[in-house]
Amino acid sequence: MTRATTTGRYAEGDDDTTANANAEFGRRRFKRSPRHFDDRVTADGRNGWPVEAGRYRLVVSRACPWASRALISRRLLGLEGAISVGITDPIQDDRSWRFTLDESGRDPVLGIRYLSEAYDARETGYPGGVSVPAIVDVPTGKLVTNDFHHLTLDLATEWGALHREGAPDLYPEALRDEMDEVMDDIYQDVNNGVYRAGFATTQHEYEEACGAVFGRLAVITERLTDRRYLMGDTITEADIRLFTTLVRFDAVYHGHFKCNLYKLVENPVLWGYARDLYQTPGFGDTVDFDHIKRHYHQVLTGVNPNGITPLGPDLAAWLTPHHREELGGRPFGDGTPPGPVPAAEEVPAEGRP
Amino acid sequence: MTRATTTGRYAEGDDDTTANANAEFGRRRFKRSPRHFDDRVTADGRNGWPVEAGRYRLVVSRACPWASRALISRRLLGLEGAISVGITDPIQDDRSWRFTLDESGRDPVLGIRYLSEAYDARETGYPGGVSVPAIVDVPTGKLVTNDFHHLTLDLATEWGALHREGAPDLYPEALRDEMDEVMDDIYQDVNNGVYRAGFATTQHEYEEACGAVFGRLAVITERLTDRRYLMGDTITEADIRLFTTLVRFDAVYHGHFKCNLYKLVENPVLWGYARDLYQTPGFGDTVDFDHIKRHYHQVLTGVNPNGITPLGPDLAAWLTPHHREELGGRPFGDGTPPGPVPAAEEVPAEGRP
Repeated sequence: MTRATTTGRYAEGDDDTTANANAEFGRRRFKRSPRHFDDRVTADGRNGWPVEAGRYRLVVSRACPWASRALISRRLLGLEGAISVGITDPIQDDRSWRFTLDESGRDPVLGIRYLSEAYDARETGYPGGVSVPAIVDVPTGKLVTNDFHHLTLDLATEWGALHREGAPDLYPEALRDEMDEVMDDIYQDVNNGVYRAGFATTQHEYEEACGAVFGRLAVITERLTDRRYLMGDTITEADIRLFTTLVRFDAVYHGHFKCNLYKLVENPVLWGYARDLYQTPGFGDTVDFDHIKRHYHQVLTGVNPNGITPLGPDLAAWLTPHHREELGGRPFGDGTPPGPVPAAEEVPAEGRP
Repeated sequence: MTRATTTGRYAEGDDDTTANANAEFGRRRFKRSPRHFDDRVTADGRNGWPVEAGRYRLVVSRACPWASRALISRRLLGLEGAISVGITDPIQDDRSWRFTLDESGRDPVLGIRYLSEAYDARETGYPGGVSVPAIVDVPTGKLVTNDFHHLTLDLATEWGALHREGAPDLYPEALRDEMDEVMDDIYQDVNNGVYRAGFATTQHEYEEACGAVFGRLAVITERLTDRRYLMGDTITEADIRLFTTLVRFDAVYHGHFKCNLYKLVENPVLWGYARDLYQTPGFGDTVDFDHIKRHYHQVLTGVNPNGITPLGPDLAAWLTPHHREELGGRPFGDGTPPGPVPAAEEVPAEGRP
């Protein structure tokens, strides 16, 4: 049942990134493998998984940008009471994501030591990678989905009955065509682009990917110069998806993945935008820089053989004034900001600026 | 006679860094091995190597910070006509530094393919590493010295008879005690500190070294806030030694060696100071960023296994106004700036901003 090498099979994010980023070095172009478990939890339960408070557990790593989307959506929508969350250790072992942060090393709700046990419960002998985010059906212990593309959109649209009062509309009908396009460009060139750069095995492949990252950032910078959020005055899913890459940029992608034409702090527009979101309830309060930095640097020894985690950058800068409110905007549209983080889910001090 | 592994024995800079930074990983703390050939070329010839125009060849890599000291001193002092220079390929092979940039792959003056041949001519079966800078006696083809600590001080003091008119005093008698202390602190914490950080094999060792780098940079920043150069109004050897590390900082040490509390461009004082020197004749005109970036990233595969060279950072910024002239100062003291770079020694376009 070994699904990963001791150097850390790299499986995170839908797409089931079974590509072992370490073992793959020098063999083939980095490619996320197709997602495997793509069931949906829906209001009408058409896949057999109806929306239901308390039934599902969201398993994430705070290190993972794809999983972090779900943490933010859940906060913004006020779904903390409806979907519980399990946080894995940022350092996978040869059986992948594990619950070593929990007392006795087991997830307290699912009772398992490894996320892979939920995959096995779903499909015996499943040969693919184990990825987060994952939604697990608590009564049966079975994995429902690890499809991060749909997961957050479903939280925004299918889980409406359980949203908090004042929850924002993160995927507004009228904007969907444009949003899908914006999000797809950002996915290809930025969210996944940094991985393509970091896991490139040839100079040419790296340069193409790194060029695409910064080319797309230039387009986004232009877009965000005079509008506060990607889709205008109000936060949407598109901002969540861009944020989870930007918040990792200087700490990981700039050095570790060689996306180094400039640091985020050198781009006044993107740095202001990223801090604006970071300081918005529901965003920064989900971010654990300690998990982020240790995961990438200690697990991906194919990129960083000595496993040393850099001291920098200076995280306190995330809390400095961003002045983006001068652009106006209504961050939550007709809604309101989320309340405080549940005490049990607070990010430990070592993960915060 | 193999002195290096195919992953690139790391031998550069006096101290004879025989430590193979790649092979050494995980074995022991990074340590420069003691220098071996420490003869001096002097005015009185007391070591058998008298100062003499045309007799010696300076072999360097433009990638190497220790060798680059000598390139700058030679320019500032106008010794281009007295000491010729051989430039090695920035990429060593398993026999170390080589003359593959020269037509037919041989140094045109020494007639050798590898710098190691000059070491062998000096001492049969020499077991140590091959390092630059190296001074080679042209008539016999023997290595004279690879002692980078003394090499530039000797250019400044012993070679006076051959200095150009208007050459600055790079090691003024009255300042030597203070200079020696300043230079030693910078050597320990900065020049060599970045290597200790980059080649650390434990988290603790890395953090100690990286902390020392930025601790010393803080002291230097304070010192340079209201004085134009390290020793006051005029350029000295101390500035040369700091410069060769700073000019590599954002391109190599920040990412590759994880000295990433901040980039040089984020420190207005040091970034102004470094650009001031870069734009001074004799400094920037010796710098080949292409050699620097390719050497570190392609040779040190123990740090960077895929050998990919990052696209960033933006080098054009080196040419932007630094405003340090507002601090006053007399860069060359009672002397004058050096003339233009000899045509044969110009840095190729791909190495310049």
